[in-house]
Amino acid sequence: MKKVLLASTALVLSAGVAAADVSVGGDGRMGIVSLNGADVSFTSRIRISFSASGETDGGLAFGGSIRADNASTVDGGGDVGTAGSVFVEGAFGKLSMGDVSGAPEAAVGDLSGVGLTGLGDFNEMVYLSNSDRPAARWDYSMGDLGLHVSADNPGPAGDQAYGVAVTYAMGDISMGLGYESVGSSDHIIGGVSAGFGDATVKVIYGTADLAGVDFDQYGASLDYVFGAATVTAFYTKAELGGVSGDAYGIGAAYDLGGGASLKGGIVDGDALTDASYDFGISMSF
Amino acid sequence: MKKVLLASTALVLSAGVAAADVSVGGDGRMGIVSLNGADVSFTSRIRISFSASGETDGGLAFGGSIRADNASTVDGGGDVGTAGSVFVEGAFGKLSMGDVSGAPEAAVGDLSGVGLTGLGDFNEMVYLSNSDRPAARWDYSMGDLGLHVSADNPGPAGDQAYGVAVTYAMGDISMGLGYESVGSSDHIIGGVSAGFGDATVKVIYGTADLAGVDFDQYGASLDYVFGAATVTAFYTKAELGGVSGDAYGIGAAYDLGGGASLKGGIVDGDALTDASYDFGISMSF
Amino acid sequence: MKKVLLASTALVLSAGVAAADVSVGGDGRMGIVSLNGADVSFTSRIRISFSASGETDGGLAFGGSIRADNASTVDGGGDVGTAGSVFVEGAFGKLSMGDVSGAPEAAVGDLSGVGLTGLGDFNEMVYLSNSDRPAARWDYSMGDLGLHVSADNPGPAGDQAYGVAVTYAMGDISMGLGYESVGSSDHIIGGVSAGFGDATVKVIYGTADLAGVDFDQYGASLDYVFGAATVTAFYTKAELGGVSGDAYGIGAAYDLGGGASLKGGIVDGDALTDASYDFGISMSF
Repeated sequence: MKKVLLASTALVLSAGVAAADVSVGGDGRMGIVSLNGADVSFTSRIRISFSASGETDGGLAFGGSIRADNASTVDGGGDVGTAGSVFVEGAFGKLSMGDVSGAPEAAVGDLSGVGLTGLGDFNEMVYLSNSDRPAARWDYSMGDLGLHVSADNPGPAGDQAYGVAVTYAMGDISMGLGYESVGSSDHIIGGVSAGFGDATVKVIYGTADLAGVDFDQYGASLDYVFGAATVTAFYTKAELGGVSGDAYGIGAAYDLGGGASLKGGIVDGDALTDASYDFGISMSF
Repeated sequence: MKKVLLASTALVLSAGVAAADVSVGGDGRMGIVSLNGADVSFTSRIRISFSASGETDGGLAFGGSIRADNASTVDGGGDVGTAGSVFVEGAFGKLSMGDVSGAPEAAVGDLSGVGLTGLGDFNEMVYLSNSDRPAARWDYSMGDLGLHVSADNPGPAGDQAYGVAVTYAMGDISMGLGYESVGSSDHIIGGVSAGFGDATVKVIYGTADLAGVDFDQYGASLDYVFGAATVTAFYTKAELGGVSGDAYGIGAAYDLGGGASLKGGIVDGDALTDASYDFGISMSF
Repeated sequence: MKKVLLASTALVLSAGVAAADVSVGGDGRMGIVSLNGADVSFTSRIRISFSASGETDGGLAFGGSIRADNASTVDGGGDVGTAGSVFVEGAFGKLSMGDVSGAPEAAVGDLSGVGLTGLGDFNEMVYLSNSDRPAARWDYSMGDLGLHVSADNPGPAGDQAYGVAVTYAMGDISMGLGYESVGSSDHIIGGVSAGFGDATVKVIYGTADLAGVDFDQYGASLDYVFGAATVTAFYTKAELGGVSGDAYGIGAAYDLGGGASLKGGIVDGDALTDASYDFGISMSF
């Protein structure tokens, strides 16, 4: 049923053809999961992703990416810029638009996560930007220094989120600091990631004023590589208006080569009634 | 994450393999837009499109096309023939089915449009066909003359639309004339497109009886090419039962090469409270 | 508009590259259909399908497949394992998860169907498994003997379906026998397929206890090949709690080569008020 897809063998064989193109990839997984004390379930997934790229005669790079399961308006909205993204890149830096992270998220990011499925993604930090899409971000690097500026859609959805951030790399250490604001809320967040031989430690701290209510979040993660195996642990805590909760996880991944890995993890903490855990094979195509 | 997608290198390298194949392309855009006086918004899009084709042992060409964002029933319906289309082509002409324009639309088409996003597509004419899908159309050409016959789905949705049209090309001039009918409504529409050096002028006039109510539509567009730039202007007017409205637009596109263009435009007229405008980069993959 | 999609020419030309890849194929059809006495309608379809595969360093095969129209949660759920499937295959057999048939369906399957569209798929047998997804199945073969074990999602949706089955091949004869159970219902089904020169006959019999109500289903199909043409006929009958109905069909397919076939069929019986029929061209990409 499935056949190979080449419209033009000639085009493939001639080097340096300038035409824009689309590559097709994807990811899959297969395993078991129990979330927050629920019965063990099967978990499986296959997702197809497209990455398009081209270059203008003047040397400007352009392109975009979208997953098949996010293509339509109903499912996400690659056609209206609420899923996927497009970019233009040149000497001026890179300008992206669509479902793009705000500047602080691009600079600071998240802690390392565990498990086959992410187990609730408690390793991820909260950001204010990229809620009104298409959002736009400009990234510019000058040697070890990176600048990032972002804005959510200035359209009719209400207050518009803005963000600015800087990143700096120094040998095995990289750090990021960002500020974002939307309406009467704002957020400052910073993080440092440092490599010590086979170990990588990342620490993030963020503090926000959410329309008058204090919100703080912080955490740390450790990745330790033993040959083909990587063990990951994280701890994170968030406090909103005096009420706080934490979560922590530990997991391991074993690279089988060719795009496949065994992955498993356990997550627990105040944020959960019971521990969540999963195990299975993760695939990258 | 994204990898190249070749099931069989051998197949790619051997010329003349008869197997049907699928090519993957797409389009994107990134810019700003203000519609009918609304605040300026970001606009971005990435869409992936598939074009499948094959040839029978007897030399009959066949194939079809669909966009990823229209694939499913929920989003459009490539699987049930309400989006995308398939075709068979041979000495008898080309027979298409699915989301295919009626014969008059295939022969006469629309005026040239402006802008990155189309700005409401006021350059497009109104047609009666292709509202009950899968629709079917047969196209046949004899030298400079083209014949087109179409029918909407004869199924249970009610009256069935029919269309017939002819096209004729004479040097830099091409013309089309079509008739379509559904229930107690019918529509005659004709257009002429003429090239004068770097300029192309298109004029369309259509008159319809919509279940007893008169509907007239007419307009003209001009495309003028200056090197890599094309300037486009259009004017269109429609009159329904004595009430009329017009719209006009001007825009420009600058081809950056490699599939990318800068595009912008302004549209105004009775049909709008305030002018609409946009600007940005358009991408073809 | 459509361009070829190769991220890396180099990768294509170098043999033995270990990277996982994705191939793109699809199917289409175009014709007419009348179901159960309804007016004749056009029928058309184009669907795009993706097949991903890879191999670990240790020689384990893995991959998955999904159609574009089933990719998202809204349309089916490739991302959550309710459509499409993934697999891992090695010396231990093949383990699949997602929208995978239960063991009895994998071993016994369906009768041969007729027509361009399937005409209601009365040639298909009823199975209890694969209603709560992701489902999982393990397939193992030892020479001519095949073993199949399956389970629906053990998660919170209620009773979990289980299935076991064996297949055996002996020259031109292959047979399958399966048992499946969910809650207070169970089902035994067996089938034999035998080739006699250009003819293939398949017979299936299944008997179930559906929470105390008897359900029986049985039928036979014949495929006869005349050069490029195949004529197919089937008869099937089902009886639920003493009420029974039958259906039968006859059809033909003519292989045009290159992935295209002419197909048509007629189906009638107690299960229909009037006969259903269709005719058209079927495409495989």
